[in-house]
Amino acid sequence: MIETDIIIIGAGPCGLFTVFEAGLLKLKCHLIDALPIPGGQCAEIYPKKPIYDIPGYPSVLAGELVDNLMSQIEPFNPGFTLGERVERVEKQDDGSFLVTSSGGTIHKAPVVAIAGGLGCFEPRKPPVQHITEFEGKGIDYIVKDPEKYRGKDVVISGGGDSALDWSIFLASGVAKSVSLVHRRSSFKGHPDSVDKVFDLSKNGRLNLITDAEVKSIDGNGSLSSIGIKHKTQGEVTVNTDYWLPLFGLSPSLGPIADWGLNISKNSIEVDTYDYSTNIPGIFAIGDINTYPGKLKLILCGFHEATLMVQSAFKIVYPDKKLSFKYTTVMGGIDGFK
Amino acid sequence: MIETDIIIIGAGPCGLFTVFEAGLLKLKCHLIDALPIPGGQCAEIYPKKPIYDIPGYPSVLAGELVDNLMSQIEPFNPGFTLGERVERVEKQDDGSFLVTSSGGTIHKAPVVAIAGGLGCFEPRKPPVQHITEFEGKGIDYIVKDPEKYRGKDVVISGGGDSALDWSIFLASGVAKSVSLVHRRSSFKGHPDSVDKVFDLSKNGRLNLITDAEVKSIDGNGSLSSIGIKHKTQGEVTVNTDYWLPLFGLSPSLGPIADWGLNISKNSIEVDTYDYSTNIPGIFAIGDINTYPGKLKLILCGFHEATLMVQSAFKIVYPDKKLSFKYTTVMGGIDGFK
Ligand SMILES: Cc1cc2nc3c(=O)[nH]c(=O)nc-3n(C[C@H](O)[C@H](O)[C@H](O)COP(=O)(O)OP(=O)(O)OC[C@H]3O[C@@H](n4cnc5c(N)ncnc54)[C@H](O)[C@@H]3O)c2cc1C
Ligand SMILES: Cc1cc2nc3c(=O)[nH]c(=O)nc-3n(C[C@H](O)[C@H](O)[C@H](O)COP(=O)(O)OP(=O)(O)OC[C@H]3O[C@@H](n4cnc5c(N)ncnc54)[C@H](O)[C@@H]3O)c2cc1C
Repeated sequence: MIETDIIIIGAGPCGLFTVFEAGLLKLKCHLIDALPIPGGQCAEIYPKKPIYDIPGYPSVLAGELVDNLMSQIEPFNPGFTLGERVERVEKQDDGSFLVTSSGGTIHKAPVVAIAGGLGCFEPRKPPVQHITEFEGKGIDYIVKDPEKYRGKDVVISGGGDSALDWSIFLASGVAKSVSLVHRRSSFKGHPDSVDKVFDLSKNGRLNLITDAEVKSIDGNGSLSSIGIKHKTQGEVTVNTDYWLPLFGLSPSLGPIADWGLNISKNSIEVDTYDYSTNIPGIFAIGDINTYPGKLKLILCGFHEATLMVQSAFKIVYPDKKLSFKYTTVMGGIDGFK
Repeated sequence: MIETDIIIIGAGPCGLFTVFEAGLLKLKCHLIDALPIPGGQCAEIYPKKPIYDIPGYPSVLAGELVDNLMSQIEPFNPGFTLGERVERVEKQDDGSFLVTSSGGTIHKAPVVAIAGGLGCFEPRKPPVQHITEFEGKGIDYIVKDPEKYRGKDVVISGGGDSALDWSIFLASGVAKSVSLVHRRSSFKGHPDSVDKVFDLSKNGRLNLITDAEVKSIDGNGSLSSIGIKHKTQGEVTVNTDYWLPLFGLSPSLGPIADWGLNISKNSIEVDTYDYSTNIPGIFAIGDINTYPGKLKLILCGFHEATLMVQSAFKIVYPDKKLSFKYTTVMGGIDGFK
């Protein structure tokens, strides 16, 4: 069991910055995210795109912002449970919370901060019969550890950056063979990546199958073959160890809806005094919350995190007095070991 | 008369960022500040000190933050009335406001945003008889334009950075003569600047008078001489064109207290929905406002500015619909000519 002061559900920009503000008050944090990497929407949807409204940054790539936030919180040495979705949040008799994530990891803390953004990113699954039966048994929607595919036959589906980037990576000496199947003949990913994929295909290191879709899957316990249907030609069966349908992720509130919180329009209602929810000890910040005037912007979540940790402190240390100090006047950041 | 959409009183970090958020909604801004430079406390009190809690900046000098904010708002080409204190804010029959500053400049707009921080920085005045009679007539507490002192005899008082920096600057070929008078023999300014002052004194380009204070002033209509009293020696009379007592600035709410706003604890009460005050059309953001949970931090003022301009838009364009768009999705900042 992992014990900490604040369990933060969601490692997007607002969850990350919470670690910093909590750390200034000597509160320790542990972040849980369903995605395998921190950064939330910034990392998952638009890491290479510039944001123009982060105060003090005339322009910053979303991925850069995440990197900078990671450096900023580094002194406070947060814990991470990545690649696991939080399924249950249960209040104990002593007032603390037990938070259980999909990998079975149990976390315990007196304060829970939900920074769940638009919710969990769920993979867009292609409409192929029996697909759920092979999930984790040859079919993966997210590449968590590319080493898994070393020396294996891999088929990737998709036309976006994720499909292109992993095709390039796995075809460069990792997998035994890589086939990229795409519905169209043009790709919407980054032009550089598209060029690389065509090069790899010309050199015979990647098997490019365009105007085609995976229509069926087969295997005994785990995946052994898939059926690929070409637009004009017929369907062929191809043996493979893995099929990675990388059609992107779309967010859905998911289990958060079942924890007894007051929800309106897919968002958690909070009090702007400290962004507390209807359940004492649970706070909600960033895109996931709603209040009069709310704007779903990163800079607003930063403010919410900052006010929230003041109340978190009072829960963790009911008898201590909190004194307000400027970071400049502190003369530097005094981190945790 | 200067006309605009939003008159911003105070060009500190929060006032500056308002220009950006307003600009995104196509609202034009004009900033007024009593100080001769933008940046508020960051520029006036601690430009060379690092801030650690600006999100995305593990560390940034206060002066750098101001520079970055100036670059960020540049596309929206704000107007500035600097070196003038706002004395009066008057609501007109048509609902708009007339805002008058100490230089007699009149500004008109449908919206006023007060980002006045801890109030106006007032110079710390030394206790010398008749000093107010010579203000602007040989005595200046702030150097607005150093050219004014070219070819003149100048006496500077003070032991901090401002006194040191202006002594160095004016002694380097600008003024005819520069004397620096300081109460102690050691200085609290930056060590580099202290070294430079001692060097200039050794080379005979600056007349350094330590353990001494200016005790009297004289002149007919304008300043012509001052009396300097040395700790152990007596008082000497020195002829001079200018005396600059640079003892720093300290903030005071000033005229803001007289505009009919609800004030508590030297701050303006606001509604967190849009940081509006009790007077429709007047908003207050940053250090100057107060509400339950308020923290006087820069990042909080950024959030407040962002929510505020939503309501400002509705006042400026009552019939237009506001559509919310991410800057990233806009694909860049479309500024004003
Ligand atoms: C294309 C695009 C452009 C944008 N441009 C801008 C812009 O210019 N400026 C701006 O301010 N904002 C912009 N945004 C919005 C910005 O990205 C969001 O406001 C920001 O990401 C919200 O941060 P967050 O930390 O609240 O949540 P998110 O970034 O959404 O992160 C939430 C995290 O919580 C995780 N999570 C949710 N539920 C669970 C669960 N049950 N268990 C485990 N983990 C969970 C998710 O996996 C996710 O990683 C843009 C968004 C998009 C999509
Ligand atoms: C030493 C020190 C260290 C700090 N460290 C930090 C830190 O680490 N993190 C942090 O977030 N904050 C810190 N702060 C606080 C931070 O500087 C303030 O929160 C911030 O400056 C507030 O910005 P503002 O725009 O609201 O007001 P200000 O910066 O105070 O600017 C207000 C401006 O309004 C002008 N003004 C007021 N009244 C009038 C009038 N009637 N007419 C014309 N002009 C007027 C003033 O001249 C001033 O320039 C620190 C402050 C100090 C002094």
